[in-house]
Amino acid sequence: MALPAWAPVALIVQKYGGTSVGSLERMRNVAERALATQRAGNEVVLVVSAMSGETNRLLALAHQITDVPDRRELDALAATGEQVSAALVSMTIQKLGGQARSFLGHQIRVHTDDAFTKARILSIEGSRLLETVKSGKIAVVAGFQGVDAGGNITTLGRGGSDTTGVAVAAAIGADVCEIYTDVDGVYTTDPNICPSATKIDRISFEEMLELASLGAKVLQIRSVEVGMKYNVPIHVRSSFNDRPGTMVAGEEEGFEAVTVAGVAYDKNEAKVQLVAVPDKPGVVAALFSSLAKDNVSVDMIIQSPSRGTDRSTDVTFTVPKTDLPRARALIETQAKGIGVERIEYDADIVKVSIVGLGMRSHAGVAAKMFSLLAAENINIQAISTSEIRISCIINSKYTELAVRALHDGFGLAKNGAEGPASIPPPVG
Amino acid sequence: MALPAWAPVALIVQKYGGTSVGSLERMRNVAERALATQRAGNEVVLVVSAMSGETNRLLALAHQITDVPDRRELDALAATGEQVSAALVSMTIQKLGGQARSFLGHQIRVHTDDAFTKARILSIEGSRLLETVKSGKIAVVAGFQGVDAGGNITTLGRGGSDTTGVAVAAAIGADVCEIYTDVDGVYTTDPNICPSATKIDRISFEEMLELASLGAKVLQIRSVEVGMKYNVPIHVRSSFNDRPGTMVAGEEEGFEAVTVAGVAYDKNEAKVQLVAVPDKPGVVAALFSSLAKDNVSVDMIIQSPSRGTDRSTDVTFTVPKTDLPRARALIETQAKGIGVERIEYDADIVKVSIVGLGMRSHAGVAAKMFSLLAAENINIQAISTSEIRISCIINSKYTELAVRALHDGFGLAKNGAEGPASIPPPVG
Repeated sequence: MALPAWAPVALIVQKYGGTSVGSLERMRNVAERALATQRAGNEVVLVVSAMSGETNRLLALAHQITDVPDRRELDALAATGEQVSAALVSMTIQKLGGQARSFLGHQIRVHTDDAFTKARILSIEGSRLLETVKSGKIAVVAGFQGVDAGGNITTLGRGGSDTTGVAVAAAIGADVCEIYTDVDGVYTTDPNICPSATKIDRISFEEMLELASLGAKVLQIRSVEVGMKYNVPIHVRSSFNDRPGTMVAGEEEGFEAVTVAGVAYDKNEAKVQLVAVPDKPGVVAALFSSLAKDNVSVDMIIQSPSRGTDRSTDVTFTVPKTDLPRARALIETQAKGIGVERIEYDADIVKVSIVGLGMRSHAGVAAKMFSLLAAENINIQAISTSEIRISCIINSKYTELAVRALHDGFGLAKNGAEGPASIPPPVG
Repeated sequence: MALPAWAPVALIVQKYGGTSVGSLERMRNVAERALATQRAGNEVVLVVSAMSGETNRLLALAHQITDVPDRRELDALAATGEQVSAALVSMTIQKLGGQARSFLGHQIRVHTDDAFTKARILSIEGSRLLETVKSGKIAVVAGFQGVDAGGNITTLGRGGSDTTGVAVAAAIGADVCEIYTDVDGVYTTDPNICPSATKIDRISFEEMLELASLGAKVLQIRSVEVGMKYNVPIHVRSSFNDRPGTMVAGEEEGFEAVTVAGVAYDKNEAKVQLVAVPDKPGVVAALFSSLAKDNVSVDMIIQSPSRGTDRSTDVTFTVPKTDLPRARALIETQAKGIGVERIEYDADIVKVSIVGLGMRSHAGVAAKMFSLLAAENINIQAISTSEIRISCIINSKYTELAVRALHDGFGLAKNGAEGPASIPPPVG
């Protein structure tokens, strides 16, 4: 008896990064996995990055010509990397006996804005991909690229193929977007500095966003935003084995919210301290609004209580290290006008963060974090929080020590990662 | 006083081959020449090939995957070569202070049929290129590529960028299409075997077609057909100097028709001789129609007068060497049915041709050709003619001798190329 036409067939998007398609041999692994997925009864769309090294080779050519290449031309140049991968992977699938068809950004109308080199996807026309997979073919989409309203080629910026993968999955209503990478999934913290780090089986979009933006480099942050917006589950997994990786999904689906899902750190911030600022209304606001006008994003701000007869205060904040040279001139001009005693800069800092949906319902998480750091004699220079994240600025020399103390202290270590960690009463 | 708006501005298409854009340094020469042409008051559209070696590199990757790569994917792969060149050349023009904008096949709707790897251009949308050059920019078009009606990327086959150049020139109504190459122009014959060969200043489309199809590799034959159809003058010239090259144009423009414009040779044919064929009506026709059905193009056919009591005849013809293995089986089956005595094959032949519009009005050209060959004791095995061409099959060991004898005998040698050669009375 034939299967009824409505028999549930999973529609799966698999995205492979540059390392996974870095050679013809590796492309063969990709093709074999895609075909195995198809043979198991699924419809398969692949999204591929450029072969590893290729994007850098192309950009190096451009930078040999000029220090400031035109961004429209840069995108036309860089987009060829993914075009080559998509064609070669299609041929490899065909060689292995399957049917495949490559698609470029303009062929499936990956419509973006015109912000060349960092464009944002506005829409994707899924119909051609759906026709392709319904006819038994594997569709192979060139990641990273799109077209603007004028038909100009755009690219999505580094890591953009992740976003292409999730956006394609949203456009065709796929059941899951699998992101293949060279690690097993998302870890509770960086395994390089914390050997007891464990792979997370399941994490919410919100948590993943906090971890991604804090330096967990596994997934491009915008792909997580797209996944959350369209509720596309993202499965981050290794292209070198068949083990399940980390499922990033909406929290509504039977989610057990752990207090702390992961510990992240970020060394990209620098601290600025204005010492003895006259404590008058509007003085500090003027400084921050001029920084904002210059596109310097200020992250953490602390103003100490007024003191002394002149009612002066200290203002501390952080800016991205890359923005510091630009911000410095601005800060010094403003500070002179305000009448600040002196300005101190410190680039030897790190932002250590704990992230977890369970914080919303469990009290005392912040207090426990502070006490775990205090137990290691680590001084906290600044604190910021969101609903599901607490971040502390500390001296960068304590990075590894702090990450390990928080990771193990919140019960994330191997053999101790099951279930939410118990919260002891706050100390001190 | 400002120039009136209708001041004649030349619109020039410049096509640069793979050698001319083979390195960033050479791209700089291309950009400088384009800018100089623009500064001289012209509007400039460039058409560029892939950097030399790049197309072969890409095809080699495909052939490492499979012996018979899918031709749609092959085209998506190969088209990246020209995309890279167009972007890099645009950046180079910008670096030198000019304005430039690259265009891919799909961006200016280079609409082709869907014969992947050897597509034919159906139309080009010139409006975007015209807007670009009117606004003071140089338009840089990726050659060799187009899109079919379904938006699939196609390529035009080897040398296809020449055709893109001339077709773009036709689409925008350009005054000339300059084809930059590594030789000075079209020569009266192959300078490698005839040191007295001279550059032709001006040649008609018809003559160029005969020369191109006979082995003069300077211009892709289809580009000449397009030039003739739309009457676009083609200027073949060197990218290494500023000297005028060869103008290929319609003959109506004050053309002095020389008797013989050039001497070509072609070693790609093989001779087949059917000995003692019964001379009955329809016998030979059946053989040639079955060869035609199998796409073997038969070029020259000679049937000797009937002889003997059985009224048998010899039939000699040529086929492309590459088709010989395929044709052989067919010929032998047919010959058996006809009752041929024996079949002889000879691949050691060359077709030597003289080409010239003047033949139409000058009698005795063929006779002079035969006598020039006879004077060198070269036996003519077969002859074919068109209105402006006479071709002789001879033993290939006489190639150089025959070409030199014809070239100098028809007055094409250096210091002797002016005016049509005088025609002596036929000999013998």
